[in-house]
Amino acid sequence: MPDNSPSVKVSAVRDTYGAEVRFCKPTQEAREAMSAAVVAELRAKHGEERAEEIHPNQDVRVVNGQGSVAMELLEQQPDLDALVVSIGGGGLIGGVATYAKSVNSKIKIIGAEPECAKSAFMSKKAGHLVTNPPNAVIDTIADSVKSSLGPTTYPLVRDLVDDVFTASEQEIEDATKFMMERAKQVVEPGCGLAVAVATSGQLYQRYPDLRKVGVVLCGGNVDLENLPWCRKRKADATAQPPGKATKV
Amino acid sequence: MPDNSPSVKVSAVRDTYGAEVRFCKPTQEAREAMSAAVVAELRAKHGEERAEEIHPNQDVRVVNGQGSVAMELLEQQPDLDALVVSIGGGGLIGGVATYAKSVNSKIKIIGAEPECAKSAFMSKKAGHLVTNPPNAVIDTIADSVKSSLGPTTYPLVRDLVDDVFTASEQEIEDATKFMMERAKQVVEPGCGLAVAVATSGQLYQRYPDLRKVGVVLCGGNVDLENLPWCRKRKADATAQPPGKATKV
Repeated sequence: MPDNSPSVKVSAVRDTYGAEVRFCKPTQEAREAMSAAVVAELRAKHGEERAEEIHPNQDVRVVNGQGSVAMELLEQQPDLDALVVSIGGGGLIGGVATYAKSVNSKIKIIGAEPECAKSAFMSKKAGHLVTNPPNAVIDTIADSVKSSLGPTTYPLVRDLVDDVFTASEQEIEDATKFMMERAKQVVEPGCGLAVAVATSGQLYQRYPDLRKVGVVLCGGNVDLENLPWCRKRKADATAQPPGKATKV
Repeated sequence: MPDNSPSVKVSAVRDTYGAEVRFCKPTQEAREAMSAAVVAELRAKHGEERAEEIHPNQDVRVVNGQGSVAMELLEQQPDLDALVVSIGGGGLIGGVATYAKSVNSKIKIIGAEPECAKSAFMSKKAGHLVTNPPNAVIDTIADSVKSSLGPTTYPLVRDLVDDVFTASEQEIEDATKFMMERAKQVVEPGCGLAVAVATSGQLYQRYPDLRKVGVVLCGGNVDLENLPWCRKRKADATAQPPGKATKV
């Protein structure tokens, strides 16, 4: 795991699910290197066939598995006009779109991205895969959707996702807080993102016929010691008041 | 509403449910006076029969209504050995116990109270109604259960509640956080209280036969700008380090 992962995510993986956690720097290169090293170590120990790297969003088995989200949702609520899904690497929306369109070709699949990490939005516009800047450069509270589309998910998004909307940082934060305050559901900003798009005026302006809209709530790994709105308040408190020079 | 109500509770009542909110001091006397004044005003305006004070936990209609919580819970999960319910005024546990015992005389009804506001615990021990100190004096994060049992609920707790356990402030806080981190459910400390008792060793030491235990999650009105664990951290930060005198 990247060494800047939210502590709640680390402790869930380690303490609740019993995993051994190895940390690496939060860059793509460090993550790939660590992953390769762990796979090599396990293969050396247990044999070639006992260890395999599974990409979290470009492995087609992961994408297919995530399609089961749409299966459960549409079993419970078959008459949805649209599904709104957050996009990072595109695995979740790829699986959801593949299943949902296969059982209901009329259902709209809507993607949601932060304004500062809109790989899917840009890719659809350009007609080819456009990736986000490196993770470290992207400044969004929705840290779970910083990844870009990849070779497996770009074609799925291109062909099966009807539209992609972006949300501002403030809209993501407001929707995340709304879910916790009103729906009493702990969600992470990468999930509040989909709620922000599903409740935004833009969506219904462009698609005035939407009546029943489903939203996939895709994660609740928030650090409760450090919620986005508390983080900001702390930053405000330590910031210099505007126009005031520092005297040393 | 008392003028120290969590802002999330005020805005839910006013903005989401459209109520007009009148504030009073957070004392029993001020609350009763404000309530009587509002009833008098409404009667003068709309007629004697159009306004009535309904006590939030001693009115038998409220207690009966809260029994529907147990009805729904036992419809979904009929084979519970016990139900754990937080106690403030005792309306919720009174209704729950009345219903649950009427359909299953063997089910254990367990009450949960903060160590510093244990009206039901003390009343059962004494064999008569014992009330808590005034609200303003009680120092618990579980602000929704500061009330004492009353004339309607004391006999119900005496006769139908099998046992009452108390939890410390730290246990209440830990259980509240656990519900949010792991169950992804936003709960208020007055609800975390019941989780604390349901997951405590004491309960299973005294009742080793309990296998399936239901917990009533009774509220999620938490101020997300001011969570208990963040509040404490703030207090720690502003406190003087021990043994250090202040220089003026």
